[in-house]
Amino acid sequence: MNEFDLIARLTPALPANPTVVTGAGDDCAVLDFGLPDKLFLFKTDAVVEGVHFEKDTPPEKIGRKALARCLSDIAAMAGTPAAAVVTLGLPEQFKPETVGKIYEGLNALAKKHGVAVVGGETTANPERIFISVALLGTVRRGKQILRSTAQAGDAIFVTGGLGGSAAGGHLDFEPRLAEARWLAEHVAVHAMIDLSDGLAGDLRHILQASGVGAELLKTAIPISRAAKEIARNNPLAKAPLAAALSEGEDFELLFTVAAGDAVKLADAWKKHFPKLKLSCIGKTVAGEGITLRDKTGAQKLDAHGYEHFSG
Amino acid sequence: MNEFDLIARLTPALPANPTVVTGAGDDCAVLDFGLPDKLFLFKTDAVVEGVHFEKDTPPEKIGRKALARCLSDIAAMAGTPAAAVVTLGLPEQFKPETVGKIYEGLNALAKKHGVAVVGGETTANPERIFISVALLGTVRRGKQILRSTAQAGDAIFVTGGLGGSAAGGHLDFEPRLAEARWLAEHVAVHAMIDLSDGLAGDLRHILQASGVGAELLKTAIPISRAAKEIARNNPLAKAPLAAALSEGEDFELLFTVAAGDAVKLADAWKKHFPKLKLSCIGKTVAGEGITLRDKTGAQKLDAHGYEHFSG
Repeated sequence: MNEFDLIARLTPALPANPTVVTGAGDDCAVLDFGLPDKLFLFKTDAVVEGVHFEKDTPPEKIGRKALARCLSDIAAMAGTPAAAVVTLGLPEQFKPETVGKIYEGLNALAKKHGVAVVGGETTANPERIFISVALLGTVRRGKQILRSTAQAGDAIFVTGGLGGSAAGGHLDFEPRLAEARWLAEHVAVHAMIDLSDGLAGDLRHILQASGVGAELLKTAIPISRAAKEIARNNPLAKAPLAAALSEGEDFELLFTVAAGDAVKLADAWKKHFPKLKLSCIGKTVAGEGITLRDKTGAQKLDAHGYEHFSG
Repeated sequence: MNEFDLIARLTPALPANPTVVTGAGDDCAVLDFGLPDKLFLFKTDAVVEGVHFEKDTPPEKIGRKALARCLSDIAAMAGTPAAAVVTLGLPEQFKPETVGKIYEGLNALAKKHGVAVVGGETTANPERIFISVALLGTVRRGKQILRSTAQAGDAIFVTGGLGGSAAGGHLDFEPRLAEARWLAEHVAVHAMIDLSDGLAGDLRHILQASGVGAELLKTAIPISRAAKEIARNNPLAKAPLAAALSEGEDFELLFTVAAGDAVKLADAWKKHFPKLKLSCIGKTVAGEGITLRDKTGAQKLDAHGYEHFSG
C-alpha cells in the first residue's frame, strides 16, 4: 500500500464541521470562518533527513525547503500565505548553531512572502532531523482553485522547465505565489496543482479528481536545463523527457483553462512574466489516463507512469 | 542548551506581520484576520515513539494523545478548537492497520470537540512513528488568556490532581476546554497555562513571563491518586509531592485570579464542575522564583526544580 492508497483509505473517515469548504485531498484545505471576502487555506508538510535532504545539506537550505513546500501548496490554490508554525524533531546531539541556521533559511523565505512564524515546537527524534511546517493562508472568497474542476477539452499548461530538481532545484525553487494569484485574477483557471510528485503523477491527481483524461504532446513538454545536463553527463541517467515526466519536486504550477482562453492567456503571460516560460503541453479529454503523442503515434502512460516510466 | 534556552534564542528573530497579536512563546499564537468578534489561535505539537509513547502503546491512544496535547494548548488560551492537520512520519514497514487505528483515536477525540481534520500528510521516518499536529482555533476577541499577565498578589489555582501521569494519564487525559471557556466568561482570569512540563516548571513559565514570583502552600498541592499509588507500591518512586511538583503531562489548567475573586470563584466552580477538583495552591508575590511553605517554614525551589527536585 503506497502513500496515495493509504490517504484514500483514511480520508473518508476524517471528521468535518461547518467551517470546512474543502477538506483533505487537495493542495490545501479551504475553511470558512465567516469573513465576507476571504476563505482560509490550511496545510501541513514535512521534510526528513535522508528522505527530503541529505545529512550534509546546508541547514539554511533545509529550513528554506521546509517552508517552501508549504508555500507551493498555497500557490496551487491561488492563495496568500499568512502564518506558519514549525515542529522540529532533533537528534540528541544537535548543535544549536544548526538549528539557528535552519531557522535563518526558513525565516528569510517567510519574510520574503510576508509570512509570520508564530510557533516553534522542538522535540527529540533521535536518528534524524524532522521538520514539519503548518501554514495558514487566505484566498479571496471564490477565487480558490481546486484539483477537481478540470473539464474535458481544457488546455493544459505548466510553468518553468521540468526534471532534474535533485541536482539542486529541490532546495532552491521559488514557490509560484505571485504567478498563481495573477492567474486567479486574470484567467478562468479550471484546475491547478503544484508539481511535487512529477508531471505524470500530479497531472493524474487532477485527472482523477476531475473525472477526465489527458493527451500530452511529447515535444511540448518543457525540459529543464538541469535534466538535459544530467542526461548529457551521465549515460546511466534518465532520458530528459522521462525525467520531466517522472521526477518530483519541480514545484511548478500545472493548470487547465478552457481551450478558447489558451491563446489570450499565453500572450498575457509573456507580458507579465517574461522570465518564466509557460508551456501549453496538451489537452484534457473525456475518459481517463494520460496519452503521450508525437509524430509517430500515441502511447499510453501506465497507471504508475511516474514510478515506472522507462522513456 | 535545553529546549527552553533554544526557544528563547530563536524567538526574537521570528518574522511577524500585521496579523500577529501574540507570537511564539505562549500556549498558542493569537492572530487577527479582521473578524469583528473572534481572534484565531494557532499551535503545533508532536509526539514521538520512544519519547512521548512506547513502542507497545495502543495506536488509538497515540493518535488521541497527539491531538489532545494541542487541544490542551487551545484550552490554556480559553479558546475553541476548529481544524487540525496531521503530519505522520512512518517507519518503512508500517502496517496500514496501525495507521488506521492512530487516526481512529485522533478522529474520535476530534469529533468529541467539534474539530475537523482537514489534512493528513504522510512521510517516511525510518526508525519511529512521529506525529505532528497543527491546530487552528478561535477565541472571543479580548477573551484570550495569556501567560504573561499575572499580577503580584494573585491567587494561584490548579484543576485536578497532579503527578503520576506516566501510569496512564498522559494517554487518557481530558483537555480542559469547557472549563477554560467557562473561566474566561465568568471570572477575570489574569494568566493561564496548561500543565505539560510539571507544576513547578509551568508555574515558572507564568512567573517569568509576568515578572512575578510565587509562594505555594505545600499541603494545598493536589496530589493525584496515581502518584500516591505509585509511591505506595514502589519504594524507589518519587515522593507524591515531588511527583505532583515535577512530573509532566498532567494537562490540567494552572491559572491566577485577583485574590479578591478567589472565594467567589471556588464557590461557583463547585456548582458548575462538581466532579473536577479546583485547588487554590498559593499566591503570586513581587520578586521571582517559587517558595514552598509549610508549618515548619519555607524552602526555595531551585531554578530547575522540575528537573532536579528531590522531594
